[in-house]
Formats: sequence, C-alpha cells, structure tokens
Amino acid sequence: MTRKFPLKGRILMLGYGSVGRCTLPLIDRHFDMPLSRMAIVEADDRSKALAPYIARGLKYETTPIVRGNLDAVLSKYLGKGDLLINLSVEVSSIELMNWCQAHGALYIDTCIEPWAGYYDNVSIPAHERSNYFLRYTALENAKKWPKGSPSALLTHGANPGLVSHFLKQALLDLAKKLGLSVAKPTSKAEWAQLMMKTGTKVVHVAEHDTQISNDPKKPGEFVNTWSVPGFVGEGLQPAELGWGTHEKRLPADGHEHPVGPKCAIYLGQPGCVTQVRSWTPIGGPLIGFLITHGESISTSDYFTVWDNGKPVFRPTCHYSYHCCNDAVLSVRELQMNGFHIQDKHRILGPEITQGIDELGVLLMGDFGAYWYGSQLGIDEARQLMGPEFNATSIQVAAPVLAGCMYMIENPTRGLLEPEDLDHDYVLDICRPYLGPVVGVHSDWNPLQGRDRLYKEPQLDWKDPWQFQNFRVS
Amino acid sequence: MTRKFPLKGRILMLGYGSVGRCTLPLIDRHFDMPLSRMAIVEADDRSKALAPYIARGLKYETTPIVRGNLDAVLSKYLGKGDLLINLSVEVSSIELMNWCQAHGALYIDTCIEPWAGYYDNVSIPAHERSNYFLRYTALENAKKWPKGSPSALLTHGANPGLVSHFLKQALLDLAKKLGLSVAKPTSKAEWAQLMMKTGTKVVHVAEHDTQISNDPKKPGEFVNTWSVPGFVGEGLQPAELGWGTHEKRLPADGHEHPVGPKCAIYLGQPGCVTQVRSWTPIGGPLIGFLITHGESISTSDYFTVWDNGKPVFRPTCHYSYHCCNDAVLSVRELQMNGFHIQDKHRILGPEITQGIDELGVLLMGDFGAYWYGSQLGIDEARQLMGPEFNATSIQVAAPVLAGCMYMIENPTRGLLEPEDLDHDYVLDICRPYLGPVVGVHSDWNPLQGRDRLYKEPQLDWKDPWQFQNFRVS
Ligand SMILES: NC(=O)c1ccc[n+]([C@@H]2O[C@H](COP(=O)([O-])OP(=O)(O)OC[C@H]3O[C@@H](n4cnc5c(N)ncnc54)[C@H](O)[C@@H]3O)[C@@H](O)[C@H]2O)c1
Ligand SMILES: NC(=O)c1ccc[n+]([C@@H]2O[C@H](COP(=O)([O-])OP(=O)(O)OC[C@H]3O[C@@H](n4cnc5c(N)ncnc54)[C@H](O)[C@@H]3O)[C@@H](O)[C@H]2O)c1
Repeated sequence: MTRKFPLKGRILMLGYGSVGRCTLPLIDRHFDMPLSRMAIVEADDRSKALAPYIARGLKYETTPIVRGNLDAVLSKYLGKGDLLINLSVEVSSIELMNWCQAHGALYIDTCIEPWAGYYDNVSIPAHERSNYFLRYTALENAKKWPKGSPSALLTHGANPGLVSHFLKQALLDLAKKLGLSVAKPTSKAEWAQLMMKTGTKVVHVAEHDTQISNDPKKPGEFVNTWSVPGFVGEGLQPAELGWGTHEKRLPADGHEHPVGPKCAIYLGQPGCVTQVRSWTPIGGPLIGFLITHGESISTSDYFTVWDNGKPVFRPTCHYSYHCCNDAVLSVRELQMNGFHIQDKHRILGPEITQGIDELGVLLMGDFGAYWYGSQLGIDEARQLMGPEFNATSIQVAAPVLAGCMYMIENPTRGLLEPEDLDHDYVLDICRPYLGPVVGVHSDWNPLQGRDRLYKEPQLDWKDPWQFQNFRVS
Repeated sequence: MTRKFPLKGRILMLGYGSVGRCTLPLIDRHFDMPLSRMAIVEADDRSKALAPYIARGLKYETTPIVRGNLDAVLSKYLGKGDLLINLSVEVSSIELMNWCQAHGALYIDTCIEPWAGYYDNVSIPAHERSNYFLRYTALENAKKWPKGSPSALLTHGANPGLVSHFLKQALLDLAKKLGLSVAKPTSKAEWAQLMMKTGTKVVHVAEHDTQISNDPKKPGEFVNTWSVPGFVGEGLQPAELGWGTHEKRLPADGHEHPVGPKCAIYLGQPGCVTQVRSWTPIGGPLIGFLITHGESISTSDYFTVWDNGKPVFRPTCHYSYHCCNDAVLSVRELQMNGFHIQDKHRILGPEITQGIDELGVLLMGDFGAYWYGSQLGIDEARQLMGPEFNATSIQVAAPVLAGCMYMIENPTRGLLEPEDLDHDYVLDICRPYLGPVVGVHSDWNPLQGRDRLYKEPQLDWKDPWQFQNFRVS
C-alpha cells in the first residue's frame, strides 16, 4: 500500500551521494509527479548512474555549488512552492535556506553544513566549530523571517532527525510502563515535563553498525556506510553533548557556551577521539564515538523544563556511535595521520556480507534503561531497495522522505527542527523502511563490570548516570 | 645453503599453535637429526595436522600440561642433554625451567608464562601481574642454580627476543653515523655506555602489522596473526615500560616497584587500553598499544649505566604495537565486553590478502629517530614457509630456532635473557627469514602535527622525548 503523494511543485536535489542515491527512488516511489519536474545538481559527474532516471525526464547537471553560482544554479530549477532537498556536503545550509526563503521554496537537509574548509580551519575557534554554534546561527538567522514563511526543516535524516521521533515514542512507552498519564503531550513544555516525570537523566543516541564486508579497508582508505567527508567533518568538530541538570561536575576539558540557551557543552577535543560506553539490544554493551550531532543540542534544549528562567530539568544528551568496523579502523588511521583525511573514500555497498545498523535512543534514569529504535539488517535493506543499498542509507533516506511530505502538507511553518514535527506522522511513514522497530528495557548501566581488573578511581558509584561513568577517552 | 645443525639429544616441543606450527618445519629443515628423536605435547588434538611428521617418526601426544602431570609427561620425552622448546600458553615457565635444571635439559621459551588464570585473577595485586614481577621471580629463582648449569633461554621469540638483537645492531649503526667508536662492545656495561653516548633517550619496539584478509572478524570472534590467549593475556597485564632517566615526571597513574632493579614502572590500567604514538618506515606514524613485554624490562635494565649504585643513564623502553586491523577490532570488543575474552578465536592464515609485519626497534634522542628491523610481507612469508603461514609466525619462529642453536653450542650458561646472546650470531641465523631488514633514519617525533585543531595542554614542547608526548590513552 504505497502512499502516493500528490506534488504540484518541482524538486531540486543537491548532492547525489549515499543518501541521495537512496532518496531518489523513494521520491520516485512515493510522489505522484513526473520525473521531469525533478532536477539533481551534483559536484561529481553522476550521469551514468542516473541514466535510467534521465531517460524518464530527470534533469541533471554536474556543477559544484559555491558561493558564486548558488543563485544562478538554484534559480534554474526552483521557485515559489518548489522544494529543495539538500543532500550535499560542504554547501552552506544557511545560505541555501535563505535563498529558499527569498524565493518561496521549501527546504530540507540532514545536517547544518557550513561551506567547505570550516571544520578543520584552525583559525576558527573551537566553540565556533561546534554544532551548538551552527544551530545558534541558524536559529538567529531565522528570527528575521516573517510568520508563515516557507517551511525549512533542518537536520531531518536518521540522526539527527528520526531519533527525535524515537525519543518521543520511547517516552510515551516509558510513561505507560511507569503508570504515568499517557496522554500525548501537545507542546514542548509538556514533552519536557513528561521526560522529567519519568526520571530520565541521560539520553543516548546509541548506534551499533555491524555491517562488515569481504573487501577490507586498505591503508590510506576511509571506508564507511555513509558519507566519508560528512563523517570526518563532524568527527573533527569538538565533541558536544546536551548537559543534564543532574551532572555534578563539568569535565576538566568541558566548556560552556557564551551565547544561546546554554543547554550543551563541548569538550576540548574532537568527537572522533572521544569515546563513551553505551548499549543496544542486539549488540550489547558498546564503546562508541561521542561525535557531535544536531540532536544532542536540539533535544537537550527541547526537553528542558524551565522555572522562572532557570533550567530545573534537562537530560544529558549525546551520541555514542559504534560505526561499522571498517570506519573504526579508518578513524584510527585518521588520528594517526594528524587528522588529515585519507585520499581514498569508499562507501560499503554490495561487498557487505552481514550486519545490521542498530540505531535508536537509549533513555536512562531512575527506571533503568530503555532502548527504542530500528534494527535494519543488510538483507532486509536489499529487499527493500535493491542490492546496491546498505541499511544505513535507508534509515537516513526514509525520514528525508517523511520530512518532505510533512512540509508539503505544512508549507508555511518557517524554521523547523525535528522535535517540532508530529512524531507519529514521521514514524508512520518511515516504519516500512526501518526493519524491526523495537523497544527493549534493560538493566544495563555504565558501572556494570567496571573496577574489576584495575581500580577506576574516576567512577561515581553513587550515581551511575554521571557522564564520567560513561566516558572512556 | 641451509645450515644443517647436528643434534645428539632429543627435543620436546610443548604447544603446537601458530608459533609451534612454524617452528617444527624450521627444526626439520635446519637440524641434522631423525624426527623420531622429537616429540610434541599439545593440549588440543593436532594429530591430523601433524600426520605427515608422525609418519616420519615424530612422537605426538595430546595432553594439557598441568601441575599434576608435568613431571610425568616431561620424563617420557626429556632427559640429560635434551631440549625443551616451550611454545604453549598457560604453563608455568618457571616450573618447566626448574624441571629442566633438575634433569640436565636445555630450555627455551618466548614469554614467561604463569599457570592459567593468572593475568585476569583480581585477587593478585596488579604489580604482581606485571612482567617485571614475573621476570624478577624468574631471576631470583635462577640464583639457586649452580654455575655451569644447563642453559635456559627466556623469552626468545620476535619480541621479546629478536628485537634485542636489532637494538644492538641499531646502536652500532647509529654510533657509526655519529662518528663514535664502533668497536663492538663485549659486556653489558659497554653496551649501556654506548647507548648513553649516542644520546638515545627512548627505545620503542615499533610494530605495524598491516596483514588484512577477505574474511572479516565476526562479532564475538577474536582474530589475530598469532596466539589469541597469548595476546589477551599480555594485553590484560598492566601497561609496563622501562622508565628512562630523562623522564621529568611519573605519570599520574604510574607506579614504581618495591623490589628488584626498579628499571621499569607500570600504569594502573591494562596495556590493551593504553595507546602510544610511534613510527615505522613503511607504515609511517602509528598509534599502537603499549602492551607489556619482556624486552621493555630487560633492555631498560641491560642498558642502564650505573654510578656508585645509582642509575645515571637509562632509556625509556616500551612496545607500541599496531596489531593487525582485525586484532584492533578484537581488542575493542574485548574492552566493550569488560575484558572477558571472546569465545571464538582465529589466527589469520590463507585468508590474508595483503600486508606486512613491520617489526623493529625505534631509537630516539638527540640525533632524531632511527628504526631498525624486519619488513616481512605475506608474499615472501608464503614463499619461505608455505601458503598456510603468515609473516608474524615466521618472525617468531626464526629466533626460536636461533636460540636453540645458540644453546646447543653454549649448553652450560644457566639462565639467559636475549641481551646475553651475541646479536650477530642470532641475526645471521634469522636474516633469511625476515624479508628486508633495514635501518632507516627519520625526523619523526611525537610532537609533529600536534596541537593543531585543538590545544593539547599536556604536551612538553621543550623535550619531545618525554613519555607524555607519546601517550594517547
Ligand atoms: N542526519 C543523518 O542521519 C545523516 C546521515 C547520513 C548523512 N547525513 C548528511 O547528509 C549529507 C549527505 O550524506 P551522504 O552520505 O549522501 O554524503 P556523500 O558524501 O555520499 O555525498 C555527498 C554528495 O555531495 C556532493 N557534493 C559535494 N560538494 C558539493 C557541492 N559543492 N555542490 C554539489 N554537490 C556537492 C558530493 O559529490 C557527493 O556526491 C551529508 O551532509 C551528511 O553529513 C546525515
Ligand atoms: N616473543 C614473541 O615474539 C612471541 C610471539 C608470539 C607468541 N609468543 C608466545 O609464544 C607462545 C605460543 O604462541 P602461539 O602464537 O603459538 O600461541 P597459540 O595460542 O597459537 O598456541 C598455543 C598452543 O599451546 C597449547 N596449549 C595451551 N595450554 C596448554 C597446556 N596446558 N599444555 C600444552 N599445550 C597447551 C594450545 O592448545 C595451543 O595450541 C605464547 O606464550 C605467546 O605469548 C611470543
């Protein structure tokens, strides 16, 4: 029962990488429109891969978008009522968004991107290389927009994106289990209250990607299940986390922000060398990278309970990412190379032999731990979309599709973050593409099995949910 | 021109794992003796793999050696003038050695092993789980032996073992390059003086194993290029390093020893989570595990210059091991599992598709850096020994062979450590099995490229050779 969505306007997709390649067939499948109303602009020549779509009317152009050609290129394909799907890297999200506002077009992306050469620019202070700062800039920028301006949905992939909807569903599950009132909250304040009532202290995006292949990473090659420059870019940003009100002490290398809601902190080192313990139902205990992500900031902001201008409740929110094994090795090599990115990049596809991308939220607190998310395996991913796709790309593309639909049905909502959308709406659209979507209670906590062979004097045994108990490096 | 070594006595080999499998054909190739004078005792049934040798007269028995059967089993195969080659794990080296002393047999191993269940026994204090303590115990134990007692060569594999001979050759190369007197030292004191004169501050065993395979590590599997229990055992011991006289400050988690020569310290965490920067010529800058090893202790002791009972010069000596990629991932999983070893073990053999084991010593100091060692690749390894062997096992087995020959020619020297042997003797025997053996000067130091994207306040910019500059975790 494929939902066929009527679409009157045009679509421009920027970037045809791992996510774009998977989003295009979804649009084709779910939107009721001729492909001649769609265009793709890409930096690298993809005309060969796109030939079947071009034959059916798709417009395609190989042009790297830069400051100087942004207006000219976008003007060719977009106008009032149309939709820009930004799945490129290194093109400024804010400039694209502002262009869309000026021309009455809808906008969606999966990551707030700056122009190229930002994340590893040592002349920019570390706190301005943070997602906190990029989001702050985007929110400030949108304050100028009039009420009822075209919808612009920021960071609506898997994570950031989908995971914010998982989080709301997990909270409702938890409330039910705890015997709390289970009416679905209707505002940010109500959602934050609900989280506080559940006793949640910490929210992880806990992801364990176990996809492996029979073509191993070679020296000098960065191998991943999604964008290599995307991952390296965010991996080199400072590690960032929403900073909960239950935390007793700022990490020695922790820094607060001078501006904005101050819901998050950053550490004095990149996320790709910052490791934290977490847990997923199938993978079990994991050690993952604390890579900065939009949702670490937006959810900690969204779920803050305020009283007289003071935050009285806020969860600690961060990512713990056990990327696929080849990417673990690639990150290690990146660190060995002084953070200069490898020359060769590869996204795993048909060479994958087994594995799943287990991606969800892990809520922890007085009640224990509860994980809610998607366990999409490579076999199901191939059945859903074809042999060239991996699980990860589908988990990202499905919420892009859902975000597009939401905006088409809600075209005048101005700037939107994932938390601003109705989570049922998004989950209903995504679910067919997520494999098993499960909620699992667990008694896991980061103190389990610790302090055994060697004393770990940094641990706080009184409160398992202190950040220092999760942190590995 | 295969050197055929006459051997009158018998040989018993304990353990037929990755090293044993490679040592047996070397013995067969280089010793002039019928196989009927050789026996192998193994815990697991290897009769199938050994069938061709058994057909030629080799005695074989499947018996795990434990305290209770050690005497009975050894007595069957060994007596005066015979040779015990211990390539097992989890059988006490000291008890085997003492048995050999009592019965007039020669003894060699590649690692001072305690009985099973030692390294992860939390009731034993961390410092007694150290190699420093195991070596101290072995040396104290040997003090009871009379002068001229049967030779017993401890820890004579690749590392510990071969690398001590690389180190002496590297020192001679360096002395020559620096225009120092190049007469070969004839005593411990002279060797230590020579190292001091070269301005050496730090000695790494810098190893980068780049062997990769097309059959990736699966979840729950520990994959390595040599013994899995061997690696896990030493990986769970405290990180240990010979502690140089140039070091300005003990690490915050560093501990000194109460007994013995006090040439080394240990850290309050296992080696498999302790990482340090190093460098090899082909691999370039690396981050490796600071796994404890016999040579970290024995070389720092051997190369100490004493003055009136005070150490006036001693190098910092430690291992920096970038194990093969699958082992990097296996170690990560081990840590995620609270240091409980995986159920499934695999040693890479025919599935290897490319790679080398680049194993040498890296001397660093006033002169810069100088690496000397073996760069044995998988293709050459297969040509040398056959398709089932990897590079690593050959680098270990060749010095075992050389150690056996040395003892047969020098049968009454009592306890021996690698540094006590003539390095030319050993290198001459090993060289045909080591691939390219090269010495390479480098301007690498651990401060290169540091402090770039993020401040690293822990660095000592005045002296690149301080341990804190190498340490990563
Ligand atoms: N939120 C999420 O869950 C999530 C997940 C995966 C990726 N992402 C983000 O989505 C984006 C795309 O990811 P991907 O995996 O498809 O990346 P990718 O690297 O596979 O593809 C990016 C594409 O953008 C193109 N591109 C680069 N510079 C360009 C320019 N100046 N103009 C036009 N095109 C340009 C590249 O050629 C490439 O094809 C990245 O920003 C990534 O961080 C988000
Ligand atoms: N110095 C070096 O360079 C170096 C390098 C590699 C290995 N090693 C050491 O050499 C030894 C052998 O290494 P490997 O890679 O061959 O190991 P392995 O694990 O492949 O083989 C060890 C063998 O010992 C056998 N064994 C275990 N318990 C036994 C018992 N109680 N009695 C008899 N046999 C028993 C096992 O069944 C196995 O076959 C280990 O101690 C290892 O640490 C040293």
